[in-house]
Amino acid sequence: MDILDIHAQHFSIGDWQARIDVLLERPGEGPALFNVDPRDRREYDAIYLGGGAGGRFGSAYLRAMGGRQLIIDRWPFLGGSCPHNACVPHHLFSECAAELMLARTFPGKLWFRDLRGVATSIKEVVDLFREGRVGPHAIMNFQSKEQLDLEYVLNAPGTIVDAHTVDVAGRRFRAKNLVLGLGARPQALRCAGAELKGVFNFVNLVEELDYEPGPTVVVVGGGKTAVEYGCFFNATGRRTVMVVRDELLRIVPDEETRGYTVDRMKEQGIEVLEGSEIERMDGDPRGRVRGVVVRTPDGRREVATDFVFCGLGEIPNSEMPARVLGVKVGPGNEVLVNAQLQTSVPNVYAIGDLIGAPMEMFKARKSGVYAAKHIMGQAIEYDPKEWPDFLHTHYEVTWTGMTEAEARAKLGKIIVIKMPPDTPDGLEVALPASDRTMLYAFLEPRMSGHQKLIIDARTRRVVGAHHVGYGAKDSFQYLHALMKQGITIDELGDLDELFLNPTHFIQLSRLRAGARELRDL
Amino acid sequence: MDILDIHAQHFSIGDWQARIDVLLERPGEGPALFNVDPRDRREYDAIYLGGGAGGRFGSAYLRAMGGRQLIIDRWPFLGGSCPHNACVPHHLFSECAAELMLARTFPGKLWFRDLRGVATSIKEVVDLFREGRVGPHAIMNFQSKEQLDLEYVLNAPGTIVDAHTVDVAGRRFRAKNLVLGLGARPQALRCAGAELKGVFNFVNLVEELDYEPGPTVVVVGGGKTAVEYGCFFNATGRRTVMVVRDELLRIVPDEETRGYTVDRMKEQGIEVLEGSEIERMDGDPRGRVRGVVVRTPDGRREVATDFVFCGLGEIPNSEMPARVLGVKVGPGNEVLVNAQLQTSVPNVYAIGDLIGAPMEMFKARKSGVYAAKHIMGQAIEYDPKEWPDFLHTHYEVTWTGMTEAEARAKLGKIIVIKMPPDTPDGLEVALPASDRTMLYAFLEPRMSGHQKLIIDARTRRVVGAHHVGYGAKDSFQYLHALMKQGITIDELGDLDELFLNPTHFIQLSRLRAGARELRDL
Repeated sequence: MDILDIHAQHFSIGDWQARIDVLLERPGEGPALFNVDPRDRREYDAIYLGGGAGGRFGSAYLRAMGGRQLIIDRWPFLGGSCPHNACVPHHLFSECAAELMLARTFPGKLWFRDLRGVATSIKEVVDLFREGRVGPHAIMNFQSKEQLDLEYVLNAPGTIVDAHTVDVAGRRFRAKNLVLGLGARPQALRCAGAELKGVFNFVNLVEELDYEPGPTVVVVGGGKTAVEYGCFFNATGRRTVMVVRDELLRIVPDEETRGYTVDRMKEQGIEVLEGSEIERMDGDPRGRVRGVVVRTPDGRREVATDFVFCGLGEIPNSEMPARVLGVKVGPGNEVLVNAQLQTSVPNVYAIGDLIGAPMEMFKARKSGVYAAKHIMGQAIEYDPKEWPDFLHTHYEVTWTGMTEAEARAKLGKIIVIKMPPDTPDGLEVALPASDRTMLYAFLEPRMSGHQKLIIDARTRRVVGAHHVGYGAKDSFQYLHALMKQGITIDELGDLDELFLNPTHFIQLSRLRAGARELRDL
Repeated sequence: MDILDIHAQHFSIGDWQARIDVLLERPGEGPALFNVDPRDRREYDAIYLGGGAGGRFGSAYLRAMGGRQLIIDRWPFLGGSCPHNACVPHHLFSECAAELMLARTFPGKLWFRDLRGVATSIKEVVDLFREGRVGPHAIMNFQSKEQLDLEYVLNAPGTIVDAHTVDVAGRRFRAKNLVLGLGARPQALRCAGAELKGVFNFVNLVEELDYEPGPTVVVVGGGKTAVEYGCFFNATGRRTVMVVRDELLRIVPDEETRGYTVDRMKEQGIEVLEGSEIERMDGDPRGRVRGVVVRTPDGRREVATDFVFCGLGEIPNSEMPARVLGVKVGPGNEVLVNAQLQTSVPNVYAIGDLIGAPMEMFKARKSGVYAAKHIMGQAIEYDPKEWPDFLHTHYEVTWTGMTEAEARAKLGKIIVIKMPPDTPDGLEVALPASDRTMLYAFLEPRMSGHQKLIIDARTRRVVGAHHVGYGAKDSFQYLHALMKQGITIDELGDLDELFLNPTHFIQLSRLRAGARELRDL
């Protein structure tokens, strides 16, 4: 395999963009890109195998601490699946879902096109993403080399030799430690016909979609990915049938919040078959899917479609380290680690999606960083237990802390502060409203969102927050930190709101905080 | 004046909506609505004169503390100017500006209409607001009575008799204290022709606009209101000329952030005449404006227009209390108060916009609450000095803490972490990107936002944050609280991000936090 030594070269972001573009057009070809410092004679403290979120952030941290690291990745860019086929396209498609729902809610009104009966292109959006994704890729390569001083080998798969050794592009690298960040892949659907053309997951959708899906889309799954993609397909104007083994959106923990969310999805016309499974998929003579047979609680249902999307979660890529190193693997194929991110094999760490749930960005990055800290001699514990979370429907759904039911069971007396108000006509009033729900507030008030705050009546602490709308995702990061500190309704009500705040929590708290005996609102 | 005693009645939100609708159609007519508890024989602890944000929140807090209060307001609803002609329509119009900029950026692409050369209706949006605004009004009346147990008299102006006495609708009410929350009104432009039809401010725009503005709009002012409305008018497809006495958007404190913001406004085609003033406005025979003459640094400019919007700030309504009670008033017509919200007259407090800058919602509400605490015997100090702030252009622009220049001057060595990266081609790359800027990231990257974080290199504390984009407004409320606690780059980098977070601060901090000697990013 050819090697291109780029260490002495300093590409601009634009240079990187052009270079990655070329390499992605010929996957598996092109030279391995070697950004390795020939003057640094130190042994590597760690080789990060996989340059995704965990490998890149862990490397950056280790390098910042004064250590020496090397990233090896099969792709010609750093950043992993997130900008290539995961978080970034998810967000782009959810963006389209939100915009299309808005446009479809006001057909021909204001400045909106009348989209009734119009299916907008799925392929155009997928193409848009695929053609534009090298921009973020280029920034990662640039930033990692020019700003973070990282060493890396890209566009070449690494092969584990032993716990200290990795081969790549015919060269051998040794390190004190090996950090595995090999990621995960979409869980495959097991049923007859699952291999037909037209059956997609989030990876091959962006790589392979070469036709415009017809009027009916089938989505398999009821979790984050299935719902995010399902809502996008629905918003493009297609009949969308979701086949869910148990219940849709069980992941949204608060029952009332989930109810509001699911109601809005169904109102958009999404058909949900719960307690159901795909029995088989049927193909046409050219090997393309033409329909699915679904086993539902009410019997078999056939759905004609040329487009099936499977969103069934992910399975860690633990095969190579299990085979070569014998690292212990759990029941979900995840590499088992302790709170120091160490595998069962000395000097071998594992991070990110490879170690299983939660397969979230914060954990990927932080596990990489915590492994770096441990390698560099810091005592660490990393075992994420509570974190703020979110998903997209046509909306952004965000939560942190306890649900109402959980808080009631654990704490006894709790106070719930919510919007819209809990009255018979509460849903028909124009609150909550804030950025991005203002037009709904004035034309379709029930679509303007739902939010609630859970407070422990005894300690007055905020113990849970739940939001459906837009613009709360970022704040839940910081609100979660304040909640971990034990922020009370009194302290929350004393913050300075930026009105109209998407979370009306500060001012609603203030309306109640004066009382010794708190009451719901 | 007729009185309608509603204390024993329990209107639903829908009932209130219908009732307020009728009363607003006949301003100054209809009965005074008396929600006064005949069984409560206690003297009022406070009469809040004015039921806007300050009066309503202050009353709620005082009531929650066990006190007795009465609100008196001339309007048939509580909540004041915010839902009637200020924050809520500002947000609706800014929402339209953001959506229209998006649509205009992709004419005929994806699902967007080709809006090139198309002016969309301003009047339709204003009408939408005016017809829908009673929804929030109704909630305030409902919530205040049924959930917060407040007493109030609405739809009747209160007349101050002395420091303990107010007359309303022919009845006299006495209280231990009087809390003035009389608000502010738009500052009038002083020039020939300023009284012509077609010359608006944010109050009479929503009350009186009865025609579709022509192709050219003139906006006078360069602060929050002027810019918010100017960007909306621009986004509807009109030539928009902003006449600014000094510099546009001086209120955005960080120079680089302001630069990005102003560049985007100009890119949208807004014409800015800085260092300029309206010399006169000319009218047609029917008394409607037909043009303005602007004095600019380069000489006189005439602009033909049938629509002028003045956003020149607000002036407190201090005349009645100054005249009747003799409360001391400052140079901007504001009622002077101490840190206990007390005016120069014993037992008379003043709150909200009436006491001058900052005329922001958080201060209105919190000053009402702090006055309530003091009246109920708590020792308080309220004198807002530092708060997070924002405004809308077509974007949301948010800031808190120090600017880069300020931090450099005060702290010496600082670290700046920013996105897009500070490279020659940084603006042409698809970062930052998050909710609502994803389509820009892929099609017009320079439009995908700007953000920066300022860190004290010595203490490692986060001392400033600045953001142009969407979705950060809510988080700045909580981030500001963490910054006041002294959060460091290390602690920030250890939070759990919800990726793609509109503020990329957590992960960017984490990339640098490993180093003892911090560096810019």
